[in-house]
Order: sequence, then C-alpha cells, then structure tokens
Amino acid sequence: MVASLSDLPIRDDLRGLTPYGAPQKKVRIALNVNENTHPIPEAVATDIVKALAEAVLGVNRYPDREFTTLRQSLAGYLGHGLTAENIWAANGSNEVLQQILQAFGGPGRSVLGFPPTYSMHSIIAAGTGTRWVAGERDEGFEISPQTAVQWIERTTPDLVFFCSPNNPTGTPLSLETIAAAYDATNGIVVVDEAYAEFAPSELPTALTLLEGRERLIVSRTMSKAFAFAGARLGYLAADPAVADALRLVRLPYHLSALTQAAAVAALAHSTEMLAMVDDIKAQRDRLLVELPKLGYPAWPSWSNFVLFGGVADPHAVFEELLDHEIIIRDLSIPHHLRVTAGTEAETTAFLEAMAGLGPIGAIDRIGA
Amino acid sequence: MVASLSDLPIRDDLRGLTPYGAPQKKVRIALNVNENTHPIPEAVATDIVKALAEAVLGVNRYPDREFTTLRQSLAGYLGHGLTAENIWAANGSNEVLQQILQAFGGPGRSVLGFPPTYSMHSIIAAGTGTRWVAGERDEGFEISPQTAVQWIERTTPDLVFFCSPNNPTGTPLSLETIAAAYDATNGIVVVDEAYAEFAPSELPTALTLLEGRERLIVSRTMSKAFAFAGARLGYLAADPAVADALRLVRLPYHLSALTQAAAVAALAHSTEMLAMVDDIKAQRDRLLVELPKLGYPAWPSWSNFVLFGGVADPHAVFEELLDHEIIIRDLSIPHHLRVTAGTEAETTAFLEAMAGLGPIGAIDRIGA
Repeated sequence: MVASLSDLPIRDDLRGLTPYGAPQKKVRIALNVNENTHPIPEAVATDIVKALAEAVLGVNRYPDREFTTLRQSLAGYLGHGLTAENIWAANGSNEVLQQILQAFGGPGRSVLGFPPTYSMHSIIAAGTGTRWVAGERDEGFEISPQTAVQWIERTTPDLVFFCSPNNPTGTPLSLETIAAAYDATNGIVVVDEAYAEFAPSELPTALTLLEGRERLIVSRTMSKAFAFAGARLGYLAADPAVADALRLVRLPYHLSALTQAAAVAALAHSTEMLAMVDDIKAQRDRLLVELPKLGYPAWPSWSNFVLFGGVADPHAVFEELLDHEIIIRDLSIPHHLRVTAGTEAETTAFLEAMAGLGPIGAIDRIGA
Repeated sequence: MVASLSDLPIRDDLRGLTPYGAPQKKVRIALNVNENTHPIPEAVATDIVKALAEAVLGVNRYPDREFTTLRQSLAGYLGHGLTAENIWAANGSNEVLQQILQAFGGPGRSVLGFPPTYSMHSIIAAGTGTRWVAGERDEGFEISPQTAVQWIERTTPDLVFFCSPNNPTGTPLSLETIAAAYDATNGIVVVDEAYAEFAPSELPTALTLLEGRERLIVSRTMSKAFAFAGARLGYLAADPAVADALRLVRLPYHLSALTQAAAVAALAHSTEMLAMVDDIKAQRDRLLVELPKLGYPAWPSWSNFVLFGGVADPHAVFEELLDHEIIIRDLSIPHHLRVTAGTEAETTAFLEAMAGLGPIGAIDRIGA
C-alpha cells in the first residue's frame, strides 16, 4: 500500500497543492504562531480539569448539539448586551469561518479580502469553492472607508472579510470602514477579531456595530488572549438568524463535550485568564520600541505580535534564529518577519539574538 | 437584532431546509441515537482524566497538527498490519466523511449511496456540493455484487459510500460486494464501519481488503463500541496517499489537544472499553428474539440497534414511549421504528412498554 497522491482521483483544483502549515519544530522559544506563551494559571487549570472529569463520566453520550451553556458563557464574557442566541461556536475560528462560507459563500459566490491578511481566509474560501477576490490596502496596511467601498462596488462580493487588528501586520481597522463596507453591500460582512483583547482598551470593538446590522458577523477565538489554542474554540457574535443559517451546514455534535466543558470552566475565570494579556502587551510594546533601535522598523501593532521590516535576508535570519532555538515567522513579505510577543524572558532572548545578527540582519545597520 | 433567516443572503440551495438532528430530549431511557448506554469504566475514566490534566497544562499551545501519537494508537488498535501512516482522524466520522468529499467530491462530482442508510451521508454530500445519487438495495436491504456493479456502471459516480453494517437497518454487507464495486469504478470507495465492533467476531472487516486497493477507505468511530460519542473521534484506514489528500482540505489543528489526549488514553484500555460490547450484543440478540414475539418482525442486526417492522402507527408509538420516558427513533420508514440496544434494565423497560401498547402497536397482534 504505497500509492502516491497522483494515483488518487482528487479534485483537479487540489492537484499540486501543499498543505497549509507553519513548521512544527520543537524549539526552546516558539514565537511563530501567535500563541499565548504563558501557561494557564494553576488554579484555573485545576477547575478546568474538574469540569473535564465531570464531562468524562457522560462521554458515552453525544454532547449538547446546541452547546447552550457554552453560548451563555461566551455571551456573558463578551457583554455588549449579547445573549446566547447571538453566539455560535466551532472547533477554532477556522471552522467558524468555514461554516460561514458554506452557508453564505460556495460555488458561484465570492469573498473579498485585503491581503496581506490571515492566510487561512483565502484557503478556507478555496476549500468551500468560494472565489477569493484580493483587494488592496492603503499605505501602512490600512483600509479607509473609501477604499473598502470602492473595492466592494467594483467587485460586488457576496461576503467581505476583514481582520481587525489585522494578521500578520498587527494594524487596526476603524469602525467607520466596517460601517461603510456594510452599507455598500447586500452581502455578509465578517470582522475577524481574533486578537481583539490585545488592542488598546479604549478601542471600540465591532461588537458595538451589531445592533441593527443583521448581516454583520464578529468572529473571536479563545486561542490567543485565553491561552487556549490547544482546546480549539472559535466563536462569533451576530444576529440570531446567523446561527440559524449555520445550523444548516454544521455537522451535528461538532463541539465535543470535553471542549464545551473546558471552555465553560475557562470562561468562568476570564479575569485571571486575561491578566496575562497586560504582560503580553507590555512585551509587544517593548518589541515596538527595541526593534527599531536595532534597525528594524516595526508596524504599529494592536495584537500580540509585531511585523517588522528592514531585514536584509529574512530566510537567513529565520534559520539563524532557529540555531538559537528560537522560531519566528517568515511570511514571504519582502524584508519582513513576524514575531509573537512572548514572556519577558522569551522577548529578551529574541532581542538579544536579533542584536547579534551580522549582515543578514538589518539593511540599515543603525547599531553597527 | 431579530432578523429572520430569510433576511439573510444564504445560498439558494439552503433556503427552506431545516437542520439535521434527532430530538434532544432529557428522558430516563435514551435509545434513539445508537449511543453506548454504558458509562465508561471508572478506572479508565481516571486514566483519561489524568491524560487530560496533563494536556491542559500545555493548552496554550496549538495541538500536534499531525496527531501522531493518536494515529499510532488507532493503528495499534485496528491491527491488520496498519501503521500510523494509514490512519487519519477528525472530530467524529462526519468530519472524516466531509473531508473525503472535499478532497474527492465537490461541485461537478457525485457520490453513490444506497438508502435507507446513514442519513448524514447525503447531507454531507449536499454540504460539500457533491451530487448525491441514490441507488437501490435488493430484498432484505442487502446489496449483491451485481447490484452494486450495475448501479456504478449506470451512474458512474466519483465516490461510492457503503455502510457496513448498515444504519438504520443493521444489515451486513459482504466483502464480495465491496471488492466488486472497487473493481467497477475508478473512484473512491468508502466503507463506513461505525458499528463494526458489534458484528459477529468471525466477520471479516473491509480492513482486510485495503492491501493493494489505494482507492478504498474504511471509516470507523470511537462513538459506539468505545462509548466515546461525547469526545467526537472518527477515523479512517487507507493507503497513506489518502491522508496526504485530506491534508489539503483539513483545517489546520482540527483535532484539539484534549481530544487527542482523551482518545489515546481510552485506546490504551481498549480491552476494558470493549468488554461492554458483549453485553450490548446480548441485549441486541434479546431484542431480535423478543420483538417478533410481540408481533414486530426485526431485521437481522450486526450492530448495536434493531430495526423492527409491523408497527401500526410508528409516530404514535414513538410518542407513547416518550410518555414512559423512553425515546427511540422514528426514521419515517413506513411501519418501522429503530431502537438502540441499551443495558439489560433499559432493554427490559423498552420491551415492557412495547408489550403494553394498544392498537397503535403491532399490526399483527400476536400477543393480543
């Protein structure tokens, strides 16, 4: 049994593709996939394990297909007057976005996005047969209301995907742009707020725009601020009719009893879980100050990572850091690399390694 | 924010549909969704919780995208010379089947199935844009090699879905039919063996056909024999090239660290977990003997449920049993109902309730 992929009757549009995936390497300091590098607090972990132990006793039964308790917990966490009826969840925000495209996109429909942005957006579009339309950003990776409206009018997409703050640039998106985009389309507007908790606290979230906009969807994740990437819990807030639409395409019982129990327990400790966010923001701000001093101009970041430029040879720097057991992300943006804000010690190790780079490092070697 | 579904721009082919789902009712005796009604043994539960406690400590990190340890455990459980490379897994066999259709089906392609069969097969086909072709079974819900080959030659599908033993009929499928179907197509042949562990032990599984057949896929689940419906773990065995194809359509990190840890721990106790299977088979055999005595002829079952006929008014019987806090399954097959084999006490309660039915019960009231 050793056939090759080309022996199998896979879809023509998949032939020659390679799977998505950042390298999975075991290194001392992993700052490549924007995880929260702080383990969850021990007291919280204890409560999560208690909830899991309870769930295991009933694991012979199918889970609550409507995950009602979890939706109540998520609504309570988000606030803004939202209730369980406004919430939907799935195994990671990737699955949430996939379900949105299954319900509102698909063959014969299109989704407009603005690269560089979260690379899974176009991959999930392809996986659901939705045509991906690549818009263009303004200077500084921003999207003005005018730019958004022009792209919508020119391409008449069925859906518009925003990412705020944007990955991999870290840059924010104004509510004016989202509202203008909504008014310019009859389609679905999705604002992926995976990193919203790392924004300045005065930043109004797109959740404040939901009232009266039944085609607006705000997606979130517990992977980042909640340090829950391993548990796979993405969710959204929207008009209850959106959840009704997703019930038509979701696989029944898609959220396991273990996932539901663990997430509910973690949400009961949101204060402790989010305490780490301030530490991470401090390290991010340190990166924003220190990287330019080393000759690497950094883009403003409202997230838990920093995109920096001025790199002579990004691939060589990536490899050199790997030799120091540090992994960051090479996104094939010329002269740029992206690094996750880790713990203080991780950030220090990264900055020291960057300071020690030779000619592969800063084009403009300020410190040299 | 109270729009209705018709206010949203959902896909035309979804308009007017209602979501899949058996009723979720809290009743004393739930024999409607073919769960394993035995809770998992306490010693096994303890080990699973230990594994989960370990996993929670690292849950801030993304899970192993390749779930290598889990694939090794599943290969070891299946035997038949299979290794981790032959295995793929997802959140329930529904997601496994969805990924198979995303890779090998989709718009412009078709899948042949043989109703009555697992109702999700056609629903997942629709969800992935794959045209569903409904073949017809022989007498007694069987599919002879000739019947399978004729349907394949007539409809030239891109995939063929079998279910063995079949849900909701419980009837088996011969290896001759599978082999003949494979030879008659250049497409993918999927044998859904969700209930395989409940078959007579001398029944050869389709796993024995995999060698030399790179287009054959055998799917399994931990939901039934392993009493793990709440943990959502479906998997498949096939040529390693099949896993390569599914890597192109799977969402990265689709299996959570909690799912992986719990499943690996349960598989380490497969002997204890499967001890319940013999008890369940005994109750199934009891149903097969006792239901006909009450005037309800039952179809041969190689699974953990029994489909029985001779019911005057299936809907009324369903409701009457609900009044006794017993839920079974009304599948809209005329004069038929399906019941899961539960514990001895559950089976007794069900049979007693059936014996007490009036004219809504057996058409041919042998016992009356």
